[in-house]
Amino acid sequence: MPQGFSIPFSATGRSSLAPRPPWHFVGDFLAIEFWADPAAVAALLPPGVGPGEDPGKCALFFSDNQYVSEGGTEIAEPSVNQYMECLVAISASWEGKPAAACPFLFVDNDNSMVRGHIQGMPKQLGTVRMTRSFSLPSQAAPLDGRGGFYAATLAHRDRRLVTAGVTLTHTTEHAPNRMLGRLINVRHMASLQAGRHERPAVHELVRQSARDVARSQVWTGTATLDFGESPSHELAMLQPLRTGAGYRYTFAMTVDDLLPLRDLSLGAAHG
Amino acid sequence: MPQGFSIPFSATGRSSLAPRPPWHFVGDFLAIEFWADPAAVAALLPPGVGPGEDPGKCALFFSDNQYVSEGGTEIAEPSVNQYMECLVAISASWEGKPAAACPFLFVDNDNSMVRGHIQGMPKQLGTVRMTRSFSLPSQAAPLDGRGGFYAATLAHRDRRLVTAGVTLTHTTEHAPNRMLGRLINVRHMASLQAGRHERPAVHELVRQSARDVARSQVWTGTATLDFGESPSHELAMLQPLRTGAGYRYTFAMTVDDLLPLRDLSLGAAHG
Amino acid sequence: MPQGFSIPFSATGRSSLAPRPPWHFVGDFLAIEFWADPAAVAALLPPGVGPGEDPGKCALFFSDNQYVSEGGTEIAEPSVNQYMECLVAISASWEGKPAAACPFLFVDNDNSMVRGHIQGMPKQLGTVRMTRSFSLPSQAAPLDGRGGFYAATLAHRDRRLVTAGVTLTHTTEHAPNRMLGRLINVRHMASLQAGRHERPAVHELVRQSARDVARSQVWTGTATLDFGESPSHELAMLQPLRTGAGYRYTFAMTVDDLLPLRDLSLGAAHG
Amino acid sequence: MPQGFSIPFSATGRSSLAPRPPWHFVGDFLAIEFWADPAAVAALLPPGVGPGEDPGKCALFFSDNQYVSEGGTEIAEPSVNQYMECLVAISASWEGKPAAACPFLFVDNDNSMVRGHIQGMPKQLGTVRMTRSFSLPSQAAPLDGRGGFYAATLAHRDRRLVTAGVTLTHTTEHAPNRMLGRLINVRHMASLQAGRHERPAVHELVRQSARDVARSQVWTGTATLDFGESPSHELAMLQPLRTGAGYRYTFAMTVDDLLPLRDLSLGAAHG
Repeated sequence: MPQGFSIPFSATGRSSLAPRPPWHFVGDFLAIEFWADPAAVAALLPPGVGPGEDPGKCALFFSDNQYVSEGGTEIAEPSVNQYMECLVAISASWEGKPAAACPFLFVDNDNSMVRGHIQGMPKQLGTVRMTRSFSLPSQAAPLDGRGGFYAATLAHRDRRLVTAGVTLTHTTEHAPNRMLGRLINVRHMASLQAGRHERPAVHELVRQSARDVARSQVWTGTATLDFGESPSHELAMLQPLRTGAGYRYTFAMTVDDLLPLRDLSLGAAHG
Repeated sequence: MPQGFSIPFSATGRSSLAPRPPWHFVGDFLAIEFWADPAAVAALLPPGVGPGEDPGKCALFFSDNQYVSEGGTEIAEPSVNQYMECLVAISASWEGKPAAACPFLFVDNDNSMVRGHIQGMPKQLGTVRMTRSFSLPSQAAPLDGRGGFYAATLAHRDRRLVTAGVTLTHTTEHAPNRMLGRLINVRHMASLQAGRHERPAVHELVRQSARDVARSQVWTGTATLDFGESPSHELAMLQPLRTGAGYRYTFAMTVDDLLPLRDLSLGAAHG
Repeated sequence: MPQGFSIPFSATGRSSLAPRPPWHFVGDFLAIEFWADPAAVAALLPPGVGPGEDPGKCALFFSDNQYVSEGGTEIAEPSVNQYMECLVAISASWEGKPAAACPFLFVDNDNSMVRGHIQGMPKQLGTVRMTRSFSLPSQAAPLDGRGGFYAATLAHRDRRLVTAGVTLTHTTEHAPNRMLGRLINVRHMASLQAGRHERPAVHELVRQSARDVARSQVWTGTATLDFGESPSHELAMLQPLRTGAGYRYTFAMTVDDLLPLRDLSLGAAHG
Repeated sequence: MPQGFSIPFSATGRSSLAPRPPWHFVGDFLAIEFWADPAAVAALLPPGVGPGEDPGKCALFFSDNQYVSEGGTEIAEPSVNQYMECLVAISASWEGKPAAACPFLFVDNDNSMVRGHIQGMPKQLGTVRMTRSFSLPSQAAPLDGRGGFYAATLAHRDRRLVTAGVTLTHTTEHAPNRMLGRLINVRHMASLQAGRHERPAVHELVRQSARDVARSQVWTGTATLDFGESPSHELAMLQPLRTGAGYRYTFAMTVDDLLPLRDLSLGAAHG
């Protein structure tokens, strides 16, 4: 019988796009706070999830990442263990407490896509780029501190969806990834059987669970952020009305669990 | 409430990777019959699916495809409506009748991946290429008939997994896509909740259903086929022991249904 | 001594990006006539090349191509012998006769880039896509005739530079590739030696030479064309003020010569 | 008149693939010393360049780079200022002193290709990947010091050409980039005019010149290295007979000059 935690199954299971958890992650992040039209944010809240206290508040997280499963053998294959990511978070509330939801999320590796789908994240492919820092001074690299300028971009279907920049000014204790502290996701698998297209096989609210979380010192500063229009994507409905601070830091975590919150498949037909 | 048939959900639903069915497909195919080690084939049969009458019999299908949902607006965006595919079929039996299963399937577009997952196909990303024909004679293009040589290749994780070639000799009524006439797929969605990793949320056998199927004249001929080794994939376990005929044809179909066969989630833990 | 017609040289010469000519080409084309600001066109005419009779007249040629050198062994490797191209032609005159120049040209294969540089074409990388036709009727494919709609797109540096569409209405004898009948190119190789940056090692006007030219029947119709802005490219200076007809056809030729017209390196410093 | 240091020329010159020098570079390097068949190395020495004292000695340099021209505006566009590189150096001698030549060099950005061609480097496209380090401990990242394991891979034409790994053991003063201290390159531009295919327009030996060179501390350790076969490339003729040490360091330099050594175009026909 074919083995594996996810498709494709195989004789040994080692071909699976998502291997058996735990999944260990580390990434360099560039994050930008922004405020979008509260109505546009509300239209993207999952069923049953309420608006945040500051209902137009959002954040964009670019990251340059490595991942391994237990044992870490994936390190030998950078094509397997590296990926770039661009994640949009919108402020929300769950059971009266601050939370966040993730309407859009782009990565450049199909194994990251499939891990994300299992977590309830709507991962799709995009081309994500971020300025790097280096350990030598050079005109070709920003300072890893005050005055350093970092750019980040996202393209999807051959169009530029995000163009962002952050200029570092000082260190801070207030990183925007606190938004991700209570991240509400939607696990979903559509049904294709005739007559059941409106009744997905899986449709549930879950909360992301992470352990062994670590974060480096955080640099913050001023930011610019622009979303491009596309006939193939609605990210631009969250076009920033105001851009807040930018942040640069490194983050690590391990994932091998999630918290089920509510089965949405029993309620009204979706979509 | 966010709309859509699949992730990502959005205000209008038009950002979904898989739009609401029906899905209309057309593609130029290069197919090659081959025989692999029957034990390797048996190890890839889904739970409950029996071996074929000719138990090592397999076929590889390369295709260069376009797809649209109802209304066809995707034609305006080739980045949305085009994809290349390489599908491996193994002979099987279901309820005593000839059938096929698809252990491995590679495409180059994430929307094709997500449609495939909904159908129960284990789609992952790969780089697929095929020789084309043109309507003018040229040394740069094969004849679209006797003597024409067509190549096809698959790469995955920066390695060549398949190198194939077909030289056309005559037309035939016996196309290998009859193998796909009863294609048994496995819909699967893993569980990430601690303690439930062995109990997938969705695990079911389904049979592919297609309507409005059309096929062009089929050219056939001699074929060569070689599978490359990779630490990241087990396709090479199906290394051809013998290669049969090759085929070139165009195929069209519409998909908006599938047939549920058996819920596998109730049985023994998977994998 | 290392062998080869172009870099990289090697023991046998077979690693060269551009092999020894002749080079045989065949491609499916989608072309669109348009008119840009005559001043923008004039600013792109090579030194010594005059404006065309209709000085803002331009054309864009998308193509899906295969190429081989003599003997045709490249057909066995689609990654070598296939490429997509998007070429901009501007009307010009040379020695009092109608001619064209090519300020911008995008391809998706480095061997095509290097062949182009040897021809005096300013090839750079881009992502080029075109709708295909198929030999079966399908909602997923346009008709290969009256009413068929074909799209084409170009992306560069993660931005959409061109979005185009053509709806076929009738056949014609007037294909826009007549513009390419007298195509004036600029062969150029910069100098890096200090003090000589303004004196390129090669800077010459040449005229493209092709033999064994063939063209299929030409379908024509209405067209739409839009150029996107980019900080990394100036194509949008040729933003269409008016769009003319669109064309779809197949074209084949062989190249193993070019005609030197004028050595520009002896004149005033360039740029 | 169109402006620019390199193709494509444009109204302002800012579209040029290679902007006017100086070019400032910084990169993280993973380098591996190895010994190949001395006859294979000799067959790749440029005309007039002698063998090294240790005639089979070679080194492979993987790097993850950023570049800017004077003023540094390219930092705002990671798609412009980032590239990955894999460079093969072979030991050589010039005028009786140790030197190196670079027969093969792969990058993933066309602007890097064109800068390289101007320098006399045989840059072509490849897919280059390297393990990264991060500032937080994680199973997903190697230590940036003793015991850290770093992988690097090169793919070309959908085949794996290089699979490499380095395990760091201690710091050293002996970095392999001393091989690059006297790097002899070949500037070359082929002729396409009939009858002149054997007489390139440019064919000259040059020596690389760099200023403002800086290097970080160097970690060294044990290494593994394997070259894959390909019908499209001859790198595997340098298959390592023995692999030496591996190295990891950061390197920065500025380039705006080169030293002409010898005009090869006057001698015997090439190739």
